[in-house]
Amino acid sequence: MSNKSQSKPKKTALRFLREANFPKWYQDVINQADMAENSGVRGCMVIKPWGYGIWENLKARLDQRIKETGHENCYFPMFIPLELIEKEAAHVDGFAKEMAIVTHHRLVSKDGKLVPAGELESPLVIRPTSETMVGESFAKWIQSYRDLPVKINQWANVVRWEMRPRMFLRTSEFLWQEGHTAHATAAEARIETQTMLEEYRALAEDWLAIPVIPGEKSASERFPGAVETHTIEAMMQDGKALQAGTSHYLGQNFSRAADIKFQDADGGESFAETTSWGVSTRMIGAIIMTHGDDDGLRVPPTVAPRQVVILPIARDEDAAARVLPAVDELAARLNDTVAFGNRVRAIVDKRDINAGEKRWSWIKKGVPLIVELGPRDLDQDTVMVTERTDIYGKSSHSVDAFVSGIAAQLQDIQNTLYEQAKTYLDARIRTDITDREGFDAFFKKDKYATAGFIRAYWDESAESEESLKPLGVSVRCLPYDQPTEPGTCVLTGNPATKQAIFAKAY
Amino acid sequence: MSNKSQSKPKKTALRFLREANFPKWYQDVINQADMAENSGVRGCMVIKPWGYGIWENLKARLDQRIKETGHENCYFPMFIPLELIEKEAAHVDGFAKEMAIVTHHRLVSKDGKLVPAGELESPLVIRPTSETMVGESFAKWIQSYRDLPVKINQWANVVRWEMRPRMFLRTSEFLWQEGHTAHATAAEARIETQTMLEEYRALAEDWLAIPVIPGEKSASERFPGAVETHTIEAMMQDGKALQAGTSHYLGQNFSRAADIKFQDADGGESFAETTSWGVSTRMIGAIIMTHGDDDGLRVPPTVAPRQVVILPIARDEDAAARVLPAVDELAARLNDTVAFGNRVRAIVDKRDINAGEKRWSWIKKGVPLIVELGPRDLDQDTVMVTERTDIYGKSSHSVDAFVSGIAAQLQDIQNTLYEQAKTYLDARIRTDITDREGFDAFFKKDKYATAGFIRAYWDESAESEESLKPLGVSVRCLPYDQPTEPGTCVLTGNPATKQAIFAKAY
Repeated sequence: MSNKSQSKPKKTALRFLREANFPKWYQDVINQADMAENSGVRGCMVIKPWGYGIWENLKARLDQRIKETGHENCYFPMFIPLELIEKEAAHVDGFAKEMAIVTHHRLVSKDGKLVPAGELESPLVIRPTSETMVGESFAKWIQSYRDLPVKINQWANVVRWEMRPRMFLRTSEFLWQEGHTAHATAAEARIETQTMLEEYRALAEDWLAIPVIPGEKSASERFPGAVETHTIEAMMQDGKALQAGTSHYLGQNFSRAADIKFQDADGGESFAETTSWGVSTRMIGAIIMTHGDDDGLRVPPTVAPRQVVILPIARDEDAAARVLPAVDELAARLNDTVAFGNRVRAIVDKRDINAGEKRWSWIKKGVPLIVELGPRDLDQDTVMVTERTDIYGKSSHSVDAFVSGIAAQLQDIQNTLYEQAKTYLDARIRTDITDREGFDAFFKKDKYATAGFIRAYWDESAESEESLKPLGVSVRCLPYDQPTEPGTCVLTGNPATKQAIFAKAY
Repeated sequence: MSNKSQSKPKKTALRFLREANFPKWYQDVINQADMAENSGVRGCMVIKPWGYGIWENLKARLDQRIKETGHENCYFPMFIPLELIEKEAAHVDGFAKEMAIVTHHRLVSKDGKLVPAGELESPLVIRPTSETMVGESFAKWIQSYRDLPVKINQWANVVRWEMRPRMFLRTSEFLWQEGHTAHATAAEARIETQTMLEEYRALAEDWLAIPVIPGEKSASERFPGAVETHTIEAMMQDGKALQAGTSHYLGQNFSRAADIKFQDADGGESFAETTSWGVSTRMIGAIIMTHGDDDGLRVPPTVAPRQVVILPIARDEDAAARVLPAVDELAARLNDTVAFGNRVRAIVDKRDINAGEKRWSWIKKGVPLIVELGPRDLDQDTVMVTERTDIYGKSSHSVDAFVSGIAAQLQDIQNTLYEQAKTYLDARIRTDITDREGFDAFFKKDKYATAGFIRAYWDESAESEESLKPLGVSVRCLPYDQPTEPGTCVLTGNPATKQAIFAKAY
């Protein structure tokens, strides 16, 4: 699966620049980094090794944290009987328009064509999320307060039929984890909801170098069936928001629908309090749009499928005879060191293609470190190192110093990515807009160079939120950090106690 | 998710004994070990933490080996367009009777009932396996011999509609990995097929302590569309065979169907040679039926979700004040040691339930080591240890000796499980049956105490294979290790060059 050859770029490696056409730039990054491709099924993509490798590393970290916070993994069926999904009214309403339905279980040949046969007595929905299936099991597992809490998670594919698909961001089938918990009290369930949102914040910021704003969703943006939805909102480089993970306090809505009852310590009977929370392959879209530049992807070293690529430089066979064993040895030494708690992931790229092309292929993939090693470097016991955060800043290092400093250097790159993104985010949250006129003007202008979020007081009224729709703007969240003073709603001029984040969003 | 209380068993922990009713025993092990349960969807099960934990550990090992043998993970859509799956005739014939078909993408309310709406222009099949989808991508990725080999794998759910479901063994939805590779030559593709079958043999024998017979399938038992299918066959304790993993050499069948062509070094055009290979959650059924006993499951320490459970023994609060910190410290010390290349997985069970009940719950789950620690043990700085392979053989050890010997002790248990299973298998392969009369008599008798495999010469004729059907017997494989001398077919009396394994099978 080699990256197909590209002509050597002049100024930037990509055909489309962020500023000129952000959506085309996004798709170009995915193509040039060889992360994913469209499949023959509308709305469904093939995730290729460079894209899937990022997901595997993200997953390994989050899975570890999910276990460390006391959850166990399970697997629930992908099919949901209609009768089951109907039980929670708000829930089924929320998902009915995007559900894939299985109606038959055989194919037969008819007039030389294959057609569905074996009609099911009752159709099955492919899970858009699993609250209803998990609820059925919870009702069996939970009889007494002694059985609580129950804290489980699953890694699975889900389907939400998508009319306007976009790779990683909106695909009809996507991969995610969904946590589901049941508790004896509302207080405990709320703590769980917050604990997992904090895990998502830490995943985004500390692991993916994506700064986020944690907060609570407005009523209209809640998960269908939830009492509260909490979110982390990230800013993409076009100034739009991306909801990067959500954690829902479901109260007793699903436990009443599924009859999840337990005997409490006093012998009384109560419905359990439940939560659910999820992060999906959408996060890969967030990585691209937070860290990518006009030369392609930049992958945070924590999740890069390869953290170091070593390019042997050898113009003839004599040189190759010296250089090839040296690059293999260097890779082995690097792979024996540890960064971010795991073995360093280094490889040698021995492909027989033009050297410039080869180097640019890795820049476009966003590998954090490119190391070149030729006969002259060998003579001096040095390597030439390029950091992806500064592709024109090659520097020479002694081999030993490079190997012993690898973890620190990867951490530096990680920090740089976070700081750049944090500076970007902070600079583009407008807090100086206080009236509707300024608000509308800001979002109507909407230039790549200045687009971003507005943070302002909001009266939390459904009407004012509704009035944002023609602008294509929504309330992203009520951030957790709030001023102590009340103020005036930016949309209505009414008194307001809380500030909200307003933005266009993915 | 505590194990619901059981009355203390008299002789064995299970209600159903292997000898009396093997199928009911199997289901009882799953229930009592709390591994899985039926869902509201026929043929689909919920895999609970103890079952899923085994799968996670199996998966981690196999995934590591798949990567070490040069494969990369991807993810392909679960939906397959009808047009695509039709392309390979033998393939679609093989799976048509068990395909789940998606025909709609919305639900609407009609007369107070939810009904499917938004009919798809063309129905989608849920993948029973992904050769056709992968083939579409391979055709795009592969242009030149320089692009070969392509070696990928995916971990995914697949659906094969099951009329007679059985937990882990035959479920309509199951989890597996499917590897797919493309090569320039048949020789390379055959080597790949063999390499992965050898990985499966090693996984089964060296990691899951399940002895297997590797060999080639007869023509009638091949994967639909394959040129050759290779298999590892295990023997369950009822003497039946279980196909535990398969590796297929597909020749050019799928590359012609999907048009996977490449330019070779001479400028000519060739179709790629492809392979595919898979192992599924069925392997958990093999673990149960190979290692389980009349007290429940026995899990190989390599894949046990918990390898050591520590039970604090404290009759009053004073004792608890001394014992509880000691058990936590012991767990921490154990979790800091390494066995089988990973951290040891030890936990403390502090549930407030009857001590005998608690101990039996872990015996039924098959945890390799149960450690009891009470005030008397504390005084002597010892622990009382029970190995699951010998539950009446408790012995006292100094704490330090136990901790420092934990990896060796787990390895011992692993070896014991393998040796017991290997002895069982070897004893139940009959090689002394040389004619049809004896053959039929053996399989008609079919007692738990004596059932097993026949290994005998076979003329490889389709007719003789067909004649086995009324007996419920099949050719499991032509083992790789063959005698050098020809012989006489056990079924027909014709001359034969090879021996086959005959058995009833899951």
